[in-house]
Amino acid sequence: MLGLWLEDKKLTLRNDLEIPRIGADEALIRLRLAGICSTDLEMVRGYYPFSNIPGHEFVGEVVEAPGHSQLIGKRVVGEISIYCGTCSTCLAGRTSHCENRRTLGIMDYPGAFAEYLSLPVRNLHLVPDQVSDEKAVFTELLAAALEIQQQVHIEPRMHVLVVGAGRLGLLIAMTLSLTGCALEVVARREKPVQILSKLGIQCIEPGKVEKGRYDLVVEVTGSQEGFALSSNAVRPRGMLVLKSPFAGDLTLNMSSIVVDEVQLVGSRCGPFKPAIALLENGSIDPTPLIDSICSLEDGISAFELASMPGVLKILLKP
Amino acid sequence: MLGLWLEDKKLTLRNDLEIPRIGADEALIRLRLAGICSTDLEMVRGYYPFSNIPGHEFVGEVVEAPGHSQLIGKRVVGEISIYCGTCSTCLAGRTSHCENRRTLGIMDYPGAFAEYLSLPVRNLHLVPDQVSDEKAVFTELLAAALEIQQQVHIEPRMHVLVVGAGRLGLLIAMTLSLTGCALEVVARREKPVQILSKLGIQCIEPGKVEKGRYDLVVEVTGSQEGFALSSNAVRPRGMLVLKSPFAGDLTLNMSSIVVDEVQLVGSRCGPFKPAIALLENGSIDPTPLIDSICSLEDGISAFELASMPGVLKILLKP
Repeated sequence: MLGLWLEDKKLTLRNDLEIPRIGADEALIRLRLAGICSTDLEMVRGYYPFSNIPGHEFVGEVVEAPGHSQLIGKRVVGEISIYCGTCSTCLAGRTSHCENRRTLGIMDYPGAFAEYLSLPVRNLHLVPDQVSDEKAVFTELLAAALEIQQQVHIEPRMHVLVVGAGRLGLLIAMTLSLTGCALEVVARREKPVQILSKLGIQCIEPGKVEKGRYDLVVEVTGSQEGFALSSNAVRPRGMLVLKSPFAGDLTLNMSSIVVDEVQLVGSRCGPFKPAIALLENGSIDPTPLIDSICSLEDGISAFELASMPGVLKILLKP
Repeated sequence: MLGLWLEDKKLTLRNDLEIPRIGADEALIRLRLAGICSTDLEMVRGYYPFSNIPGHEFVGEVVEAPGHSQLIGKRVVGEISIYCGTCSTCLAGRTSHCENRRTLGIMDYPGAFAEYLSLPVRNLHLVPDQVSDEKAVFTELLAAALEIQQQVHIEPRMHVLVVGAGRLGLLIAMTLSLTGCALEVVARREKPVQILSKLGIQCIEPGKVEKGRYDLVVEVTGSQEGFALSSNAVRPRGMLVLKSPFAGDLTLNMSSIVVDEVQLVGSRCGPFKPAIALLENGSIDPTPLIDSICSLEDGISAFELASMPGVLKILLKP
């Protein structure tokens, strides 16, 4: 089959990839649409030593699922952690942190940037008819945004700052805006500012962020500067959510974290069901984030496009 | 009056210090007993540029309190943050984070290592008759330990690790032990191990701490090694409480915090009333931590003693 292959930080288009073989309680899925995410770009830069088909944001159609014939022909999205279900972490209900986990297109498991992919049936969620492929492909990213609400009690009266207005930052801002909180987003580029303004979400320049003003700050840049801005903006006893993996180490003044009793919360994958619900009821429309839909055959140049500053979501269509 | 004076990282004993002048709603307190704390030692090492009388752990007797005659002759302990009561942080109820705060013996306010000290009346708490001076002098430190329970819901079924068994670490272990949680304390020195063993609290050597085993880890060493041990011990989605200010910057692998969705909580001063209650009802007996009671006149050598490895609490008596 046709697909993208990552090896030694080099991405190639190949036509000789094997269609995944599936076992019991697994499904073979024909790709309909996939999204290029910052993690994919970081992997190409060597953030994670992965040799396989990348890609973890997708919507597809089930073509095989032994013992689950009701799924055949159905559109699905899928959770990306392939978990064992038997380790103590899984048994405690934290399957996305499974001690033996593999991760679709990220760790020890072939991903979605190909004509076909596979996943355990228990990872799949049906896509309602009203949700287009162009919306459904954002489910994984939208779920990651909602993980914040899963971890933190967002009180409507809170002052909240989102630092970073890229793909994930924008979806985070969209979901936080639904809570009614006093929300500001650090954004400079024209396109994110336009998207946010249309939604009535207030943008603020980095230089205008007031020290200690915010009850909750969400850091989505993954940079030392973003972290410095964020930890300066949070109030004493406030909360700082780290939503973006930092490549490499980060140097912090921990004393101010202790003295100001700030809470730091790491945040990663999130719940799919509420993400699908928000797409279905129209509360979130992620399609303004789409920059281009490229053919899978043009995957290499699509990656180059996605890594250009200011470009938002690039989708791949087989 | 007699007291200790800190200036340019140099501690001296002086006999010419002025007795504090008090204003409305302030009390003059005659010192009965004071405790030397790690923060005091750090200040002498230059951790904070403070030129004044140090000391913030004390029990004393009120000798003057205009308009509050009912306090005269009473034994008191006192909260150490002198707050304005009018800034937005105070109005939000976070008076210990007051934007204009001064701190007894730490910041812009003379401390307790002298024959007399002063504090606003609203900072004072009466010491019940059943609580001896030797116990009452631990109120501030015990309150700081209880701040953890104030910030974090300790579930009895949790696995909890305390890293560091000095003065504060021991009190933290004592209060956590009251929750019924499965508690272990990283301790090596003979004396802390003895104290903990007598209380039935389990000690563990640093090399034997299992990766990802603990729901909650409390870091009380303030060192890079202690932090590394702590962040390795906490489970995915677990909580790491930072209880000790780190001198200088700390280099962290933030990616693991994000990927494992760990929560970091800075923790500082705590609530006095429950601390006094635990001393009064006998649930906590801090006196095994007392190494020596020195005369205030011998304050310089008492500081030297307190900074020796393995020495626990040194008290100063005027």
